[in-house]
Amino acid sequence: MTSTTAGTVRLPAGFRASGVTAGLKASGTPDLALVVNDGPEHHAAAVFTTNRVEAAPVTWSRQVVADGRVDAVVLNSGGANACTGGQGFLDTHRTAEHVAEVLGLSAGDVVVCSTGLIGELLPMDKIVSGVDAAAAALSSEGHEDAAVAIKTTDTVHKVASHAGAGWSVSGMAKGAGMLAPALATMLVVVTTDAVVDREDLDAALGAATTVSFDRIDSDACMSTNDTVVVLASGASGVSVDRAALTEALTDVCSDLARQLIADAEGAAHDIAIEVIGAASVDDALEVGRAVARNNLFKCAIFGNDPNWGRVLAAVGTTRAAFDAAALDVSMNGVAVCRSGGVGEDRSLVDLTEREVHVLVDLHAGPEAATIWTNDLTHDYVHENSAYST
Amino acid sequence: MTSTTAGTVRLPAGFRASGVTAGLKASGTPDLALVVNDGPEHHAAAVFTTNRVEAAPVTWSRQVVADGRVDAVVLNSGGANACTGGQGFLDTHRTAEHVAEVLGLSAGDVVVCSTGLIGELLPMDKIVSGVDAAAAALSSEGHEDAAVAIKTTDTVHKVASHAGAGWSVSGMAKGAGMLAPALATMLVVVTTDAVVDREDLDAALGAATTVSFDRIDSDACMSTNDTVVVLASGASGVSVDRAALTEALTDVCSDLARQLIADAEGAAHDIAIEVIGAASVDDALEVGRAVARNNLFKCAIFGNDPNWGRVLAAVGTTRAAFDAAALDVSMNGVAVCRSGGVGEDRSLVDLTEREVHVLVDLHAGPEAATIWTNDLTHDYVHENSAYST
Repeated sequence: MTSTTAGTVRLPAGFRASGVTAGLKASGTPDLALVVNDGPEHHAAAVFTTNRVEAAPVTWSRQVVADGRVDAVVLNSGGANACTGGQGFLDTHRTAEHVAEVLGLSAGDVVVCSTGLIGELLPMDKIVSGVDAAAAALSSEGHEDAAVAIKTTDTVHKVASHAGAGWSVSGMAKGAGMLAPALATMLVVVTTDAVVDREDLDAALGAATTVSFDRIDSDACMSTNDTVVVLASGASGVSVDRAALTEALTDVCSDLARQLIADAEGAAHDIAIEVIGAASVDDALEVGRAVARNNLFKCAIFGNDPNWGRVLAAVGTTRAAFDAAALDVSMNGVAVCRSGGVGEDRSLVDLTEREVHVLVDLHAGPEAATIWTNDLTHDYVHENSAYST
Repeated sequence: MTSTTAGTVRLPAGFRASGVTAGLKASGTPDLALVVNDGPEHHAAAVFTTNRVEAAPVTWSRQVVADGRVDAVVLNSGGANACTGGQGFLDTHRTAEHVAEVLGLSAGDVVVCSTGLIGELLPMDKIVSGVDAAAAALSSEGHEDAAVAIKTTDTVHKVASHAGAGWSVSGMAKGAGMLAPALATMLVVVTTDAVVDREDLDAALGAATTVSFDRIDSDACMSTNDTVVVLASGASGVSVDRAALTEALTDVCSDLARQLIADAEGAAHDIAIEVIGAASVDDALEVGRAVARNNLFKCAIFGNDPNWGRVLAAVGTTRAAFDAAALDVSMNGVAVCRSGGVGEDRSLVDLTEREVHVLVDLHAGPEAATIWTNDLTHDYVHENSAYST
């Protein structure tokens, strides 16, 4: 039941993967990955962006996953294939067809994920030759190579794992944000050799993403391409029930989510907004998200400025149950706001460490939730002001 | 029916104003203003922040305005008196009492507005002596002095006027954002010498703010202190009906709103998000606001990068009626996205001017609305990362 860190994660039994340079990225770094489930089982579940402007590969992959079977996932960086009209969908279809042809599969069992700039058609000749190269490079040792090939602005690749008794779960992720709503594009492939019921897999993935990727909110921007897909090969021969599967997927997804926040574009602080005393989990989430999305608060944290008034101003925009005269706020353990008014001296708050903890007590009930976000920095503005040019 | 620019706006008949240095701001610049209505009429209406964490002066002033009569407005920069508990409310009450005593009014007819850092008590000795000095300085020529004294991070003071036949409207504003929701604190005092019905004044102010301050959204952050108050002296002797009053107040409020956007903290571009083809005005506003609040889009504009995919990704987060395959987007006149896909070459878009026009056609109906916002810049991060320290 342990999570491991980047650089040491292998594929579970029954999987092969690879990452190659197809030439999609000007940087010349790896940009096309394959993950193949060799079975004996081919169960799958997925969660996609809720953005109504969804990329062609999302539209395609929803259909692929609908029957619960996925044999392979092909992922490319260097282009999102979003807002690309009918041609974009044909290109996704052709990518899946080519993967199927090379690997002897059905195109209807191939998930396609793309990430990069919106509004540009993919160079299909490079995709096709890249798929050929990736298929030739497939290996049970290929987890790291695939994780590297799906990076865009990521400074490090992200992997995580969970070890059960005779079975395991591995995961790879790219992105600097969250799912539904989401920032930049988040792509996640989780693999397990457990023998699972397909409905359990679906339920476990939903439960895991709800408390992991859904609770990170780097900059409130929802992508057109976000995809989290889990594949189960059954190759371990070990049957795993819904509870254990949920625990394992939550472990891996939470680990990956924290890695996404830690590598968010231009961020200097990782900020946990913990909301307690809420009348409902939804209230706690609404308050946490309101604080996480407040640009003035995010700039203050960048400046190591414990400007707690901005926390209260953000809380005040929500519909959550609370009495403004009862609100308590602590920053890194200092109770700067008590009963909606001035508490301990704000100058006692030390914000020099990367991790920041903001605790909001609504005093309105027993529920709680934590949203992870980042500060708003010069580097965030810089990285995002010159992305497509 | 003309609007005028800063530096040339005088008070309507029946008003006196002043602005003095009370010593609230470390900078030593003017920080306390008075606006007094000498009548013969004393009609008033106001709109306040919808933030549930509201500052003491907002709580007080709501009560003052409830009966439709206001004799004076006292405004201070250098401290918001928000999240200051029972003592903060007592301080606001004492400020109103002192103004009333010095001017021979009832405290219940004195509106109080404060702006500055949240979570600090005001230095009441300086407020009291500042009120004394401001009362002594009251003058029918004091409009500019008052407008200067309410500045915080504003680089220029903001005034506007509207001339009717024998009557006029003048306005002053501070802030770098919007009302409900709002950024920084927006304070606005509008004065007119028209003879008006009190209900007409209330309706006209509501109509004017709905299409002016409510449609600017610099950074989506709603303040605890936002107040827009209008005072009518009747001193011109000219009766004005609701329609003419609405037109005049809309003229002045729209002028001030644009000045707020033009002076928004650290902004390098003023961006009009015009949404057309909407099924309803609410849909158009939701779409406009979603684009205006998308940090990735705002960074792109700062970088003169016509990254229209970020516009579509923002539109896709809304509940507005539209078909993603029908969306058209133009940037500064270049149709970069047609029918949800690639349109004209994005490199044709010139974003070097301060004003930027983004046109989104939802192709879902006859309604339209425009939201004004700003880009997200290094200077915004800088100014807001070191505000309270």
